[in-house]
Amino acid sequence: MATIFSKIIEGEIPCYKIAEDDRFFAFLDINPMTKGHTLVVPKQETDYIFDLDDATLCEMIVFAKKIAKSIENAVPCKRVGLMVIGLEVPHAHIHLIPIEKEGDMNLANPRVKLTSHEFEEIAMNIRNKL
Amino acid sequence: MATIFSKIIEGEIPCYKIAEDDRFFAFLDINPMTKGHTLVVPKQETDYIFDLDDATLCEMIVFAKKIAKSIENAVPCKRVGLMVIGLEVPHAHIHLIPIEKEGDMNLANPRVKLTSHEFEEIAMNIRNKL
Repeated sequence: MATIFSKIIEGEIPCYKIAEDDRFFAFLDINPMTKGHTLVVPKQETDYIFDLDDATLCEMIVFAKKIAKSIENAVPCKRVGLMVIGLEVPHAHIHLIPIEKEGDMNLANPRVKLTSHEFEEIAMNIRNKL
Repeated sequence: MATIFSKIIEGEIPCYKIAEDDRFFAFLDINPMTKGHTLVVPKQETDYIFDLDDATLCEMIVFAKKIAKSIENAVPCKRVGLMVIGLEVPHAHIHLIPIEKEGDMNLANPRVKLTSHEFEEIAMNIRNKL
């Protein structure tokens, strides 16, 4: 069965898309830790990131770097933090989280509530910096 | 001034070393979130991970993958999570954190207290799986 991320990639489930190429896809986390929180996923369904072959893992981190640089330029933050937990959805994904301080990456923090309009605007701002 | 990680790499500050090659170094976090929590750093002092050139970033993630696989085989866990915060020490580093559940990656969790003997044993077990 397709994962929720594959359904997003296929357009069966809507998302606030940031970018895609032939192998990877980036979109806003719908339950963001901070404004601009983005997920990067490989189009290939692999559960565990460290099961990706070296070449794919390399391409994924370089794709994520490009997205992180755009987030930095679009969203006020000191850094873009990176997190891979790997237990939420059986489809490898990198969280890119714009942060001002270490505590912003705390998983126990309440999530930011945004309107569709705000999500659209953030996604557009990040896309404009690509 | 050399960062604390450069001092560790140079052997000026002791550590529980896991592995090194000509460009990267891995050692146990002295203030671990879980048993086996490891840091991977480039020998080159670069503050922000996304300022590493693409080739170095690739090599670093592939080095980290190798260490993560060893941790998985040495420490009881479901996954090895990955985190880059980037605000603690101005020297890029990847946290590799063996986890059983998402909550294990919560930065607010109390850190695990281990004796030197326990650190030594964990490091040896991980090295033995390399």
